Amino acid sequence: MEEISPGLENVYIKYTELTYIDGNKGIMRYRGYDINELAEKSSFEAVSYLMLFGRFPDSKELMEFRDRINSNLVLADYLKNILLAMPEKSDALGMLQTLLSAKASEELNYKYSKENDRDKIPEILGQVLSMVANIYRIKEGDSIIDPDPYETYSETFLRACFGKADKNRIKAMDSALILYMDHEIPASTTAALVTASTLSDMYSALASAVTALRGPLHGGAAEGAYRQFLEIGSPEKVDKWFNDNIINGKRRLVGFGHRVYRTYDPRLKTFKKYADMLAATNEEKNILATAKKLEETGVKAFGSRGIYTNTDFYSGIVFKAIGFPVDMFTTLFGLSRVSGILAHITEYVETQERLIRPRAIYRGPGERKLE
Amino acid sequence: MEEISPGLENVYIKYTELTYIDGNKGIMRYRGYDINELAEKSSFEAVSYLMLFGRFPDSKELMEFRDRINSNLVLADYLKNILLAMPEKSDALGMLQTLLSAKASEELNYKYSKENDRDKIPEILGQVLSMVANIYRIKEGDSIIDPDPYETYSETFLRACFGKADKNRIKAMDSALILYMDHEIPASTTAALVTASTLSDMYSALASAVTALRGPLHGGAAEGAYRQFLEIGSPEKVDKWFNDNIINGKRRLVGFGHRVYRTYDPRLKTFKKYADMLAATNEEKNILATAKKLEETGVKAFGSRGIYTNTDFYSGIVFKAIGFPVDMFTTLFGLSRVSGILAHITEYVETQERLIRPRAIYRGPGERKLE
Repeated sequence: MEEISPGLENVYIKYTELTYIDGNKGIMRYRGYDINELAEKSSFEAVSYLMLFGRFPDSKELMEFRDRINSNLVLADYLKNILLAMPEKSDALGMLQTLLSAKASEELNYKYSKENDRDKIPEILGQVLSMVANIYRIKEGDSIIDPDPYETYSETFLRACFGKADKNRIKAMDSALILYMDHEIPASTTAALVTASTLSDMYSALASAVTALRGPLHGGAAEGAYRQFLEIGSPEKVDKWFNDNIINGKRRLVGFGHRVYRTYDPRLKTFKKYADMLAATNEEKNILATAKKLEETGVKAFGSRGIYTNTDFYSGIVFKAIGFPVDMFTTLFGLSRVSGILAHITEYVETQERLIRPRAIYRGPGERKLE
Repeated sequence: MEEISPGLENVYIKYTELTYIDGNKGIMRYRGYDINELAEKSSFEAVSYLMLFGRFPDSKELMEFRDRINSNLVLADYLKNILLAMPEKSDALGMLQTLLSAKASEELNYKYSKENDRDKIPEILGQVLSMVANIYRIKEGDSIIDPDPYETYSETFLRACFGKADKNRIKAMDSALILYMDHEIPASTTAALVTASTLSDMYSALASAVTALRGPLHGGAAEGAYRQFLEIGSPEKVDKWFNDNIINGKRRLVGFGHRVYRTYDPRLKTFKKYADMLAATNEEKNILATAKKLEETGVKAFGSRGIYTNTDFYSGIVFKAIGFPVDMFTTLFGLSRVSGILAHITEYVETQERLIRPRAIYRGPGERKLE
């Protein structure tokens, strides 16, 4: 008798040359390069290019890649009108899913081809930047704009959102985009792969990924961790909160533990650095101090069982210090995943081109007749 | 060394009590009942109820189920505005994906619960009926309407589309909705399951399914088969076309063969019956005669290898005779799948509640340093 594979946990869906993870040692690399080193020394565009095309661009290729992204920052009028039509309270990821889907419906004569798809990638990166920036603006009660192009993706994005950006925030945003770019194949990437395996267009595959990101078991951890700090309120309240809610309550400590890691999440280090660097207001410093105290308490309690802080523990503090409200965190996570997901679907479709169609085991009633 | 499972072809993702398929004998049943018998004697609403809740409704439950669907036929103004904002040429499935995504973004405080989800199903069925009918209308250059409620789903749908409906077309539509309701877990249902496994909301899971349906390897077979008949033009041209394109050319015969069946697709019988019943104009009769001749020729050539006509071979002729243009076929297929997909996701989430997260096997470069 065949057995089911619950959650596909031990099923290998593809080969990949993208992300290497050693969960015991806390190592994560993109195409062989340590992610913290990439976050420190490279740029979002160069790392995207590395992931998508298999090698770093030379300076001319990098300039061309940036130019092509920058020439695709203007959203079509109908996309702006859709954004304006949506209720103010709509959630940000739902808005992104809607815009990606609407954009997909332009792809009337879409036919898969390796060249076309790779060619389309900078267009998609430009369009998604503008979608997310304008979703943020609309939710803040601001106007829709056509983003002005700056040299880097992160600067273009932050200036489109806020009308200003300083060097540290640009660098922090860039690092966040790099660190969150890929993580093998979580549910969102899996959904995108299933869609892409039917040779559906890339906007549809991204929309599919976003539908999965919205689920509370997947994309919302940075938001959840930050809301937890807000709930605790200050460092001196950590011990009592931890005892009441985690040790004696039935709640799960958000931002701790990961199916893949048995030690500290390697991405944590850089996020923590930027949290330290950017937390400036009293409130931000208080939240950061609360987080650090909670990390200490949590590691003391759970570290021996291989449960440590994961990357979402500090990323929300960074996004907040950059200037974003809590309800944008998961959408920023989605923005950072775009290159990684596109790299996974091109890798899958180009090497396997196999429709993803698992089976189910029937165990319902035998033959029955209508009365 | 671990191996990948290409296309997840031999991977069992869940248990199911919904659809039983015997591909060698050409048998297909929903919860034990033969699908052709259900298409003949039951109704879309009763079969949806059977799939979703595990048993047929009694007459009071059926009436309540219909009433609840009918009280959810009005689309929110913002959805109508989105539909109006989209370019006329947008493809119909893309429009459906967009509306489902926009609707999902209302689900701000969505929290998975068995009771809420089952309760929501008639709402979703009503909303999707109205979405698809209005997509058809808009693409025809017609106005958006709030569908008037009739006794059956099929009558409500056809009258919303065309302003009229006769008994035979209503019955044919109803049978098509039943026959296409479920087929175990093709790519679209798989995408919906991945999304639902994150405990994302049901509109998002349906949007995810539609992103996969749009792919040419999945949802477009009825349209492809019908365009093939149009290309051939008439029965007497079948032999030459078949020799030139299939035997000596490299083209694939659309509407033939299926990963699951080694004989006639069991759903074919009923679609063929309605094609015979409804083809009325000279053009419709000519296309039907062309299809029959092509079936004869194809089965003679490929039947011995277990390749027979599948359900999409005649369904397009039925949809066309009901009154729909070719570019609506895949969207009608999507409409019919809604109950089946909702039944699969409630079955999955309620019995397994396991995040779907497969793995990839890394075979890229080892550790590298930035220069």
